[in-house]
Amino acid sequence: MSTASRFALAIHGGAGTIARSEMNPAREKAYRDGLEDALRRGGAVLREGGSALDAVEAAVRTLEDCPHFNAGRGAVFNADGQHEMDASVMRGDTLQAGAVACVQNVRNPVTLARRVMEKSPHVLISGPGAFEFAHREGILLEDDQYFFDRFRYEQWQRTKGTDAYQLDHSDGEHRYGTVGAVALDLHGHLAAATSTGGMTNKRWMRIGDSPLIGAGTYANDATCAVSCTGHGESFIRAVAAFDVHALMAYKGLSLAEAVRTVVHDTLPPLEGDGGIIAVDRHGRVVLDFNCSGMYRGHLAPDGTPVTAIFRD
Amino acid sequence: MSTASRFALAIHGGAGTIARSEMNPAREKAYRDGLEDALRRGGAVLREGGSALDAVEAAVRTLEDCPHFNAGRGAVFNADGQHEMDASVMRGDTLQAGAVACVQNVRNPVTLARRVMEKSPHVLISGPGAFEFAHREGILLEDDQYFFDRFRYEQWQRTKGTDAYQLDHSDGEHRYGTVGAVALDLHGHLAAATSTGGMTNKRWMRIGDSPLIGAGTYANDATCAVSCTGHGESFIRAVAAFDVHALMAYKGLSLAEAVRTVVHDTLPPLEGDGGIIAVDRHGRVVLDFNCSGMYRGHLAPDGTPVTAIFRD
Repeated sequence: MSTASRFALAIHGGAGTIARSEMNPAREKAYRDGLEDALRRGGAVLREGGSALDAVEAAVRTLEDCPHFNAGRGAVFNADGQHEMDASVMRGDTLQAGAVACVQNVRNPVTLARRVMEKSPHVLISGPGAFEFAHREGILLEDDQYFFDRFRYEQWQRTKGTDAYQLDHSDGEHRYGTVGAVALDLHGHLAAATSTGGMTNKRWMRIGDSPLIGAGTYANDATCAVSCTGHGESFIRAVAAFDVHALMAYKGLSLAEAVRTVVHDTLPPLEGDGGIIAVDRHGRVVLDFNCSGMYRGHLAPDGTPVTAIFRD
Repeated sequence: MSTASRFALAIHGGAGTIARSEMNPAREKAYRDGLEDALRRGGAVLREGGSALDAVEAAVRTLEDCPHFNAGRGAVFNADGQHEMDASVMRGDTLQAGAVACVQNVRNPVTLARRVMEKSPHVLISGPGAFEFAHREGILLEDDQYFFDRFRYEQWQRTKGTDAYQLDHSDGEHRYGTVGAVALDLHGHLAAATSTGGMTNKRWMRIGDSPLIGAGTYANDATCAVSCTGHGESFIRAVAAFDVHALMAYKGLSLAEAVRTVVHDTLPPLEGDGGIIAVDRHGRVVLDFNCSGMYRGHLAPDGTPVTAIFRD
């Protein structure tokens, strides 16, 4: 087994047109605290020699448990006033993957996605079927009250009964609420995970890019691990996460060049606002986006959590 | 607008370990007749200057209406005794795409997928949500009786209540029931479409590769249009359809080389039994598979339908 000289971890908590005017020190601190907490938990796994898979799951679980991000506890309301969540995970050593779409009442969709990978013959299950599998597997469930948030409820009330979708939770902003993590472990393996609550007032059991392997999530020890956040439909049409891998594997681009190509050349003509985080097998991390901000963070070489929101 | 000197169409009706012993002249004729009918209908669209998108929809609708193929009318029974269907469509000129997963009682899922592309802001919708959208859009619905087939019902009865999945409708065979079409039109545009009823006795609203853009279906005027059939989970992990495009776009492979690489090098280590049909922008068609047979067909240069099942 090859070993890496270092481990690496990067995370995101969504991207979009984030209005600086709506950010204040208390709000910014809440987001940064959530990101730092996720980096610390994922980093602790990696430092102790744990797997990249365990690290991305730990980081994403932390973000799912934080009410500020649109995933898990903080998931937005759909058109029926419910919380329909999507998540996926992929490991770069075996190319195994697991995902869930439109699942309700699951505390940590990323953990359910991992269970699909490890305990079912499938990659992707959905809706009430995914809930049934979660129940059978003893995955932690929560009642609707757990996911209730006054701010998101009022936001939903403003779009309820209309055809309008709201991308995430802020007026005057276009924010793509998603959380994700990518990691390289000391054994030289990569993994990626992504989780989201989708769009406020979404209908028709819409599935975005987050649970789709190759679109929102991809990992391959030969190249990189990738997690996306943005306008899901565009990322699906671009097959964005796998394209980063393909540009490295077939065209010989570096991680930074590959991510830059997808984020700034491929996605914009498809109205693909958003961002990508990625790590390569050497532990280089890239966090890039084509909108005004992305909640994001990574571990510095000395292991210190570094977080950012705007293009600082 | 560039124009092609010719049009091209290829279709498949599933692949797998097809036992020659279970094939007889009457059965073979039924399959070949279904394939030829689809080729004729899709070919008529192209000959008259219609779009690749119209042609793949027409061909796939014909296969969905034929009870011999596991899609539309011939869809297998899931664990609840219902028919849960997946389909997708993509056009190579605009990279627009539409798809549905786990939808019930829709006569032609491929037409619903196209409607998602053209009349919704989404790429992929699912389950009861997709049915609601179909109803709203006036898509042709059918009652359960329309999808009832004695042979498939008895097949389901043999696995019902067990954990066993059956890949398709034949004992002693491993067959991946899916239908698909790829086309180049006289305007130089490509399109691809795929449709399936999934696996007999499937549970948990499992979603395979057929409705996933990049996995089971992909089209891009710059390179090719692709439709896959096989062990869906493997095709998802391989991001198989997009990989054909990427190998052409970034590595400069020909269509035949790219398809061969994915079918014979990439998929087998992932237990990816199955096949791929593809057409490039010059109208070259490739129909390749790594198992004993694939129901398939294409139009010869003079427009004659050519069909095959085994590796002749």
